[in-house]
This record gives sequence, C-alpha cells and structure tokens, in this order.
Amino acid sequence: MHDKLVPELLAGSFRALARVISLIENESHHSVGLLEELHPHTGEAYRLGITGPSGAGKSTLADRLAKLYRADGNRVGIITVDPTSPFSGGAFLGDRLRMSDLYDDQGVYIRSMATRGVSGGLAARSQEVGDAVEAAGFGVLLFETVGVGQIELDVMEAVDTTLVVLVPESGDEIQMMKAGIIEIADLFVVNKSDREGSSKLRLVLEQLLELKEDHSQWRPLVTQTCATTGEGVEELYANLINHREHLVNTGRQSEKKRQRARQQVERLVNRETITAFWTAARREIIERELDNMSPYELARLIGKET
Amino acid sequence: MHDKLVPELLAGSFRALARVISLIENESHHSVGLLEELHPHTGEAYRLGITGPSGAGKSTLADRLAKLYRADGNRVGIITVDPTSPFSGGAFLGDRLRMSDLYDDQGVYIRSMATRGVSGGLAARSQEVGDAVEAAGFGVLLFETVGVGQIELDVMEAVDTTLVVLVPESGDEIQMMKAGIIEIADLFVVNKSDREGSSKLRLVLEQLLELKEDHSQWRPLVTQTCATTGEGVEELYANLINHREHLVNTGRQSEKKRQRARQQVERLVNRETITAFWTAARREIIERELDNMSPYELARLIGKET
Repeated sequence: MHDKLVPELLAGSFRALARVISLIENESHHSVGLLEELHPHTGEAYRLGITGPSGAGKSTLADRLAKLYRADGNRVGIITVDPTSPFSGGAFLGDRLRMSDLYDDQGVYIRSMATRGVSGGLAARSQEVGDAVEAAGFGVLLFETVGVGQIELDVMEAVDTTLVVLVPESGDEIQMMKAGIIEIADLFVVNKSDREGSSKLRLVLEQLLELKEDHSQWRPLVTQTCATTGEGVEELYANLINHREHLVNTGRQSEKKRQRARQQVERLVNRETITAFWTAARREIIERELDNMSPYELARLIGKET
Repeated sequence: MHDKLVPELLAGSFRALARVISLIENESHHSVGLLEELHPHTGEAYRLGITGPSGAGKSTLADRLAKLYRADGNRVGIITVDPTSPFSGGAFLGDRLRMSDLYDDQGVYIRSMATRGVSGGLAARSQEVGDAVEAAGFGVLLFETVGVGQIELDVMEAVDTTLVVLVPESGDEIQMMKAGIIEIADLFVVNKSDREGSSKLRLVLEQLLELKEDHSQWRPLVTQTCATTGEGVEELYANLINHREHLVNTGRQSEKKRQRARQQVERLVNRETITAFWTAARREIIERELDNMSPYELARLIGKET
C-alpha cells in the first residue's frame, strides 16, 4: 500500500503528502524507508520558524509572509505546531483559522502537527515533516509554533531562521526571555505596532540585543509590524531575505544542514542500537530480578551480562 | 562537595533536598549516584497527580488537600510542574501564589520543577524528584501540572492517582478530552461549583465515564468542589483515600511501582548503552562521511562496522 506513496508525493499529490506525514507522526516503521526515498529531493528548502506568545498574531503574520514568498514564485508549506492540550482545541483551532484565502492556493500546503504523544522527538519530527513537504515541491517552509517552553526550542532546531513575534504588551515578560529566546532569535517582530508601547518595546529589545554575545556575526533585527493591515511586513520580508543571504554567505546555512544530518544519523543509530540491545533474554532478566534488587543494581547486572 | 548531601537530605534538610533536586534537574552525572543512595528510602510515598486547564483552581485545591493530608499526620511535598514559557513566568508565578500559609509549615515542602530543557525525560525526572522528596521524609507527594498536551501525560506516569480538575466552563472542551484525559483520569473534580453549569458538567462527565472500558475495576468518581470556600473538598479527600485503598487492595499499587522500576532500569541501561556505543572512532566516521552519503546510508555504515 505504500509503494506508490513516494512517486505520488514527488508528483505533488497533497493526498500522498498527508498520508506520509501521518505515518511520520504515528512513528510508523514504514516512515524511515519512505524518508530515505524522499531524501534525495530535500536539502534545498528554506525553513523559517515563527514563534511567540499566544495571541501575538503569528498566524496572520505567517499568512502575510506566505503571500510575499508566493509572489516571489515560491511554493510555501505552512506547518503549525500546536501543543494540543486535551483541554483546548489548539491544533483544530489553528486549522480553522487558516481556512482563509490561502486555502485555495495550490502553491500553499497547510498542515497542523500534533505534539501529543511525542516523546522528546519533536525536533526530529519537525525535520522529517519538513523533508516530506519539501520533497512534494515546496521551497519555503514556515514552522509556526506557540511559545510554551521546550516545544518551540525543539521546533527551532529544525529551521534556518528563527523569528520571534512579540506584542507591545510583552514588555513585562522580557525579563523571562533573557535566558532562552534571546539566544535563539535571529529576528524579532513587534507586532500590533498600532498599540501603545510598540516603539518602546523595540528600543528595549535593541538594548538587550546589544548585550548579546555575538557568535554568528549576525545582529538580530527588530521590525515593527501590524499584521492585520500589513504595515511593516514588507520590511520584515526584506530582513528575512537578508538573513537567508547571510546564512548562505557565511557558510552558516551548510553548517546548520550538516548539524541536522549529524543528529539524524545519531538518532537512527541510537534507535537501532537500543532495539538490538533489548533481546528477549535481557528483558527476562528484568522480570526475573525486578523484585530482588534496586533498579540501579539491576541495570548494572544487565550491563555486565552483555 | 556531594558527600554530605545524602545524610543531610535523609535528616530532612530542605537545603540539601533543594540541592539534590537541582542536580537532578540539571542532569548532573552525580544525580544517578545520589538517587541510588536515596533509593532504599523510597517506594512508600503516595503520589497524587493534579492536572487540568489553566485557571481551574488546581493550586487552591492542592493547598486544601495538603492541609487535609497534614491533619492526618502526613508530611506533604507539593511539586508544581509548569511549562515555563519564555513568554510567561509560569514557574515563578506558581511559586509566588504558593507563598501562602503553607509556606511556614515545616511539614510541607513546595518546589517548582521546570520543563525547559527536558528532552523527553519529564516522566523520569518527575519520578526522580519525587524520590528525593520522599527520601527527605514526605509521605504524600502532590504533583500539580497544567494540562498542555504531552507534559501532563508524562507527569502522570509518575503518580499513583490522577485527579483531573475542570470548571463548569470546560463543558465545550469535553469532546477534546475523550481521546486523552478520560483514559488516564482516576478522579474528576468540577471545581468552582458555585458557577452555572457545574451539575450539568458533572452529569456529562458521568455519562462519558459510563462509556469508558473498564480495565482497572475502578469507576472514576466526579466530585463537585469550590476550592475557595472549601465546599466539597472533604468529599474529594474521602474519594482520594478510597482510590488509594483500591490501588493497594487490587495490587494495582505494586504493579504501578513495578512498572516504574522497569522503566527506570530501561532508561539507565539505554543511557549506558548509547554512551558506550559512541566511541571516538564511530564519531569520526560521521565526520568523515557526512558529506558523502545520506544520513540513512551513514547510519547503516556505522551499524555494520560495529
């Protein structure tokens, strides 16, 4: 049933693409083989991560940016990563909001990715889903995720450029950000720039950024936008293009790709190693001795009998 | 510097306990040794997980329950697991809210656990932090976590009883819950029972629970409470006591402990196996061949050279 999926996906079938993404999400054992077949068709797409607090206007901004990338002749994949709480319809809501005018554009593919059930593999999965979308012919991938701790850090491992979207009301929260987001952000947006405090937040951010140690020779830019009216979005787009060029010119782009490939090798090897290790005989030792010793002693025993 | 930590912790030092928890959180290589020393002093505490949407009153309810457990002669550890967004002060807020009258009670230990930086290890870490708190002499551990997808499922792996707190306004969200929370909840609370819709939500929940396949011979109970006034909290407490007795009487308690020990053995062995696998020679193969083949081919090559 899977033998036609790859040629269909490569031919641009949305149905085949959706099926492959589901297999990746469900950690099907077929997905590794499929991804290997898709691999020669990946590695060129530009991957942009958009993160920020809930209600900052990330979706509207992503739609605006998608249209600008489209106007430049790119096919655009939008992958929203929602922490699907059992108590809210995060992923569903995201889907519904996006059933906008982009929905009818065959040059745009929109997909929600669930975080539920992911055991520490969100960075890997974001990359794999991105690979599938790229192989289907999309040259620009937008990963949109709400900032809830680890999740956005995982997703941002899979992108080339990280864009952090704030609103004037975020001012008080800047203190919290010093630790995490300042380190990973390549660009900042102060959205809803028609509200009071927008320019002040921009200044505060720029001051914070001056304190940042510079490892990449890239000075993060702060852009003020109003996504609903479109104001400032073209300036942001120009800044994004600049960052992409910077990545290419400094060799950072290829280093990021190498790093992702390296991590992928490690994951594949680790999974294989662990699977091979847990023979029936070793599992039996656990069951036989579980009541007789501490987990620490038992782990050493199993290590010794190897 | 660590050689006095264990005796100090066992003697009940809050300072030593805080230090050990920090070592666990930072995944210090000392933590495994410390946890092994603490292990003989663990395994008896009752672990209650409290989850639900933001604003449902989990903290107030946890404080009320802590007081009832205290009145029954227990020392109580409260561990709050906040998804620390860089955009909000989750963990800090939690701490501040709790600087309440319990704070001065030496029979209560309150600690926030960060989720940031945890790579799929939150279930493990919750258990380890719980072990440290138990070894310091706390017989009842309350794990409080907001429901944001994977996080609460991870934390609930480390507890004996899962209590899900809802509010009358949660009615619309019940559909979402069918998939996840209904499966893991042992008890439900409809908090803020003074608000309209409380009894209706209780009925809806009870109907949903009738549809649930019963694997544990335990029929989840629904309690209406008003945590701020204390109404219903004693009924909830009685239901919790019932559930704990049920776990003991049916052998579920020991089965849960065995399962957690089993997973701990697997984690210890897996970490050791992976660490031992990645010799300098194998790492060199990656660097040498990374540009010459796909991650999939490279993973196979490394597997073969083993």
